[in-house]
Amino acid sequence: MSLTDPDRLFPVEPRLRGMARAFYDSIKDLPIISPHGHCEPRWFAENKRFPNPAELLVVPDHYLFRMLASQGVALADLGLPRADGGVTEQDPRQIWRRFAAHYHLFRGTPSAMWLDHSFEHLFGIDDVLSTDTADAYYDHIDDCLGQDAFRPRALFERFNVEVLATTDAATDDLRWHQQLRDSGWDGRIVTTYRPDAAIDPDFPGFADTLARLGEITGEDTSSWAGYLAAHRARRAYFKSFGATATDHGHASARTADLLRADAETLFAKAVAGTCTPEEADLFRGQMLTEMARMSLDDGLVMQIHAGSRRNHNADIFARHGRDMGFDIPGRTDYVEGLKPLLNTVGLEAGLTIILFTLDETVYGRELAPLAGVYPSLRLGPPWWFFDSFEGISKFRRAVTETCGFYNTAGFNDDTRAFCSIPARHDVARRSDCAYLAELVGTGRMREAEAFEVAHELTYGLAKSAYNL
Amino acid sequence: MSLTDPDRLFPVEPRLRGMARAFYDSIKDLPIISPHGHCEPRWFAENKRFPNPAELLVVPDHYLFRMLASQGVALADLGLPRADGGVTEQDPRQIWRRFAAHYHLFRGTPSAMWLDHSFEHLFGIDDVLSTDTADAYYDHIDDCLGQDAFRPRALFERFNVEVLATTDAATDDLRWHQQLRDSGWDGRIVTTYRPDAAIDPDFPGFADTLARLGEITGEDTSSWAGYLAAHRARRAYFKSFGATATDHGHASARTADLLRADAETLFAKAVAGTCTPEEADLFRGQMLTEMARMSLDDGLVMQIHAGSRRNHNADIFARHGRDMGFDIPGRTDYVEGLKPLLNTVGLEAGLTIILFTLDETVYGRELAPLAGVYPSLRLGPPWWFFDSFEGISKFRRAVTETCGFYNTAGFNDDTRAFCSIPARHDVARRSDCAYLAELVGTGRMREAEAFEVAHELTYGLAKSAYNL
Amino acid sequence: MSLTDPDRLFPVEPRLRGMARAFYDSIKDLPIISPHGHCEPRWFAENKRFPNPAELLVVPDHYLFRMLASQGVALADLGLPRADGGVTEQDPRQIWRRFAAHYHLFRGTPSAMWLDHSFEHLFGIDDVLSTDTADAYYDHIDDCLGQDAFRPRALFERFNVEVLATTDAATDDLRWHQQLRDSGWDGRIVTTYRPDAAIDPDFPGFADTLARLGEITGEDTSSWAGYLAAHRARRAYFKSFGATATDHGHASARTADLLRADAETLFAKAVAGTCTPEEADLFRGQMLTEMARMSLDDGLVMQIHAGSRRNHNADIFARHGRDMGFDIPGRTDYVEGLKPLLNTVGLEAGLTIILFTLDETVYGRELAPLAGVYPSLRLGPPWWFFDSFEGISKFRRAVTETCGFYNTAGFNDDTRAFCSIPARHDVARRSDCAYLAELVGTGRMREAEAFEVAHELTYGLAKSAYNL
Repeated sequence: MSLTDPDRLFPVEPRLRGMARAFYDSIKDLPIISPHGHCEPRWFAENKRFPNPAELLVVPDHYLFRMLASQGVALADLGLPRADGGVTEQDPRQIWRRFAAHYHLFRGTPSAMWLDHSFEHLFGIDDVLSTDTADAYYDHIDDCLGQDAFRPRALFERFNVEVLATTDAATDDLRWHQQLRDSGWDGRIVTTYRPDAAIDPDFPGFADTLARLGEITGEDTSSWAGYLAAHRARRAYFKSFGATATDHGHASARTADLLRADAETLFAKAVAGTCTPEEADLFRGQMLTEMARMSLDDGLVMQIHAGSRRNHNADIFARHGRDMGFDIPGRTDYVEGLKPLLNTVGLEAGLTIILFTLDETVYGRELAPLAGVYPSLRLGPPWWFFDSFEGISKFRRAVTETCGFYNTAGFNDDTRAFCSIPARHDVARRSDCAYLAELVGTGRMREAEAFEVAHELTYGLAKSAYNL
Repeated sequence: MSLTDPDRLFPVEPRLRGMARAFYDSIKDLPIISPHGHCEPRWFAENKRFPNPAELLVVPDHYLFRMLASQGVALADLGLPRADGGVTEQDPRQIWRRFAAHYHLFRGTPSAMWLDHSFEHLFGIDDVLSTDTADAYYDHIDDCLGQDAFRPRALFERFNVEVLATTDAATDDLRWHQQLRDSGWDGRIVTTYRPDAAIDPDFPGFADTLARLGEITGEDTSSWAGYLAAHRARRAYFKSFGATATDHGHASARTADLLRADAETLFAKAVAGTCTPEEADLFRGQMLTEMARMSLDDGLVMQIHAGSRRNHNADIFARHGRDMGFDIPGRTDYVEGLKPLLNTVGLEAGLTIILFTLDETVYGRELAPLAGVYPSLRLGPPWWFFDSFEGISKFRRAVTETCGFYNTAGFNDDTRAFCSIPARHDVARRSDCAYLAELVGTGRMREAEAFEVAHELTYGLAKSAYNL
Repeated sequence: MSLTDPDRLFPVEPRLRGMARAFYDSIKDLPIISPHGHCEPRWFAENKRFPNPAELLVVPDHYLFRMLASQGVALADLGLPRADGGVTEQDPRQIWRRFAAHYHLFRGTPSAMWLDHSFEHLFGIDDVLSTDTADAYYDHIDDCLGQDAFRPRALFERFNVEVLATTDAATDDLRWHQQLRDSGWDGRIVTTYRPDAAIDPDFPGFADTLARLGEITGEDTSSWAGYLAAHRARRAYFKSFGATATDHGHASARTADLLRADAETLFAKAVAGTCTPEEADLFRGQMLTEMARMSLDDGLVMQIHAGSRRNHNADIFARHGRDMGFDIPGRTDYVEGLKPLLNTVGLEAGLTIILFTLDETVYGRELAPLAGVYPSLRLGPPWWFFDSFEGISKFRRAVTETCGFYNTAGFNDDTRAFCSIPARHDVARRSDCAYLAELVGTGRMREAEAFEVAHELTYGLAKSAYNL
């Protein structure tokens, strides 16, 4: 028995299945391009063994701990760090057992597919995870992790990753990237400029972040001109560590294009910490336009991840802090939201802005029509809850007819669950090939074209959209 | 010839069809759990014969009369009661003939599937309903209804209903439930606490309802404390008649958590009838949170049916009153709407709140992410216009990847069309099995798991979510 | 080799494919009913040869030039007219070559399907368009266009068009329609009353349009009564040229039903050019209700095309003017928006209002529930970006269960790309037959019923909904 079906995600009808398999066979061994994600550069810089199965696979994976939370498991019992100093589970084997006991909750979810893929193809396991098999799993995986072949760099090479981008804060000194570079290892790992904490007046510690940004760059970040110059300086620094992109996580797609005097006044309030919520939102919108202008100068590709309502539950935020699975999507309006930015720089063919959404309703109504006419826009792949077979299918069905394939940007794994990277890219490749088989089977594309498009979706578009 | 296809709703591809049939065969004979609906307890208490085919099948079914209205048939010509004292059709055979003449309108709709199922499996008919067959249908069904085997209790048993919940107003004396209990019949019929008329300041007769609530409970329902105490008393009374749940039909999912003094002030306005529309909405939102708190105490499961814009047409409302098919869905925001309630009690594993929607766009964006992390939340099945093959398919496809199967709550028939109950549950069972076959066929679930999940979706989850 | 698959858009599973083909074979040769579109009456009145391949196929097709724009091709390089007097490409062969070089962008889009259909079935070409074949294509098509068999009237007859409606401004003198009538040619081409420029205070030249409307009709269009009378007069004039319908393109579905005095005051502001944006929007909403009232009198069917955010980019608008592909859909609320109109005339069975949307999320939530109960409402087919296989599939899946087939209005091609008309109707016919095959294959409809419904969707419903 094997944990995964070799024809998984392909259509069941035999003619379509045969075509999907042929498209997949033609691209399955292409190297992984991972232009956006949250792996730690430190792992590769230090190249230490991963500590244990729970800390590798459970604790950092919000898909997993949120599902267990939904059925009454306390986050602390899964070893999630506490912001309030409270007690958390310290025994990784206990964490693993709790996870194993709830593994049936993931039936039908991408998490199960990703994990089973890793269990089988990375660790060579062929039994289903459950309470009964929990300890055997733990021991086996832990044993693997002790081997050199399972250290970060070895896995990076085994996964056939051509390039992987990390995401680092504006004030990060990029020391691990420096150490990586100094190490002489030839794995290509680049950084990405993610300045949210230095752009969002509502971010905890905003004033300190501005001060730190000033220290690092020698700019007067209490002035609007100095603040912008500091961003420019940091972008250049990030570029020197291979960055080809910036990334912006905003609650909405709102942008603005204020007069300079108004922007200065608004920034002064942000510095003073006196913005109303509306002013803070306007400032974030203004900064998206400023970042786009800088991208036009320095060539960094701009990613906008819009629409997450962060930290939905106050108790969880107080107990555990940010990123604890209580981030819920909300509606956002890209058509009116992006208009000020697009009226400023949207027609520039030299600029690339990659749009992401957590609201599938905007694919057909807003994103595809926008990307299907503005030369600066490309659509990022389905994100977060929608990084899945259904998510990818719906995305392709919703956007292709309006903006085609060539206004999309390939796949992102967007993960800190390092071992899931091959599985995630595999799901995307299979899902795209399944869609292409349907197009060919229903006379909407020629077979030869589908082979070309499969290659683009897997490899070409990610490299070109991100200048990698 | 038969009216219904024995393989209806299963995928057509032979391998998938075989799997769907196997899953279905394993659960098709399970008893019906009907945890939410609108059957009259009086039917079962009195156990009289149903009067005639039109009053049994057409007059109480809003799906049917709204479709005929859409093609120009006057509601009064279908025997719908008038609020203004105007004339309505009195001859049930004429009503039936009008219905039969328009039966082609239902092609491709769940109504046709439900009716054909009843016609064939309950009444043994195998001709299609039309003007030509209208009278033969009428005579045959009317003849059946005169037989003891077609009385309410006999049908309840024939339908293999393990438990059925009615929905009763807060001020209802539950006399029919009392009579049922006194009768010694062992069919399990429980009540559900539906206090909308006593919670919504905009509901006609709100002041009278409050006064009546005070009389019944002996509480001073003109004070905030007394009003809450009256609700607590009625919930206890409903529990004594088997209630395991409350039900709340609100235009939106808005909730609130006001300071006690503010709630008292707001309630005083509601009592005085001086709420602005915004204040009335806020009051309804506050009461959802109050009901959730009471549920934490008394264990009643809370159902929220949000998003219907009631009585869209003023003329119809004046002529016929409420519930005449002119209730149209609208958008509603669950993420911001539920936040006050969820910040108060959302992390309580001892509380169960079952969410329903008339806006399919919230499944993936809002409901699945919320239910996939909050232990108190479960997702109810597709409701009203979405209680259908497509509705169920879209629901499963939209939510499973994010919140799995175990955060959903099984099926509700939610009907006052008693004879359609077996047909509706059958559609849900078939639709779920079709979805499971696709998951297995595409390697997203194992076959043995699908058998287990099919059982849960049909039986286990409804019983556990509703404490039945 | 042929450019198109004879079984395109049919399901791949053999039993379904056989059924879809059978349904399609029964309706594929029915005449084309084209009740809404943007062909020029002048083409048929003059019956001159079409100038060249680029001006026939590329320049007027916004689907094509917007896709090329999205990949950095300047609109002027495609020969798009400039509003600012700037230079545009004058050589049609260069335009054609640019288009051909980008033809791969259209893989998987309806544009490719429509074009390949025309290339193969109209011009007899069987090579794929590309840089290599661009000149051969150009020469061959240009040669065809010089033949009498490719003149407008000959194509109209070859396309088997039974009736085609043009769309003309309220102030249009309909001279081409007059010339057509005078010509004695028996092709049936009717006009449609499209008064947006005379209704929308924000439309450029609104005051001039009112003045012109006054001159033509002899009414005092500076008074509310005279303005309404002028519309009535023009509607009668359009009726005399065969019009059976009006058409209204509004940014939202908002309607209003003001007191006469308030309407007069609002109109006075519109005349004076002093409306706020909110007042202009209210005025447009009021006029939809006025138009509906006039329809009740004169029997013209009312079409509402709501939801396009026009001229999204200011630079493009300044350079090229309107309708340059930068019109992006947005959300719109039909439930609250249409309420004032529907409360006024919505129950009138003698009135027909056909609703269109650019927001697929409203199909199931708003449009189907509204059309499934209001006798005046019918649903138009998927529009613009959604006039496609996926668009039609999603439409049918979203609305049929709630409002059936008989509350829909057949197909519209809605195009100024005359040669694409047969291809567009063919796609709609195939897509509908594919859907019907699925319904029959899954036991949701009987085969005999599907043949009847296929005929209605292709022919009957468009004729009856539009009184053609």
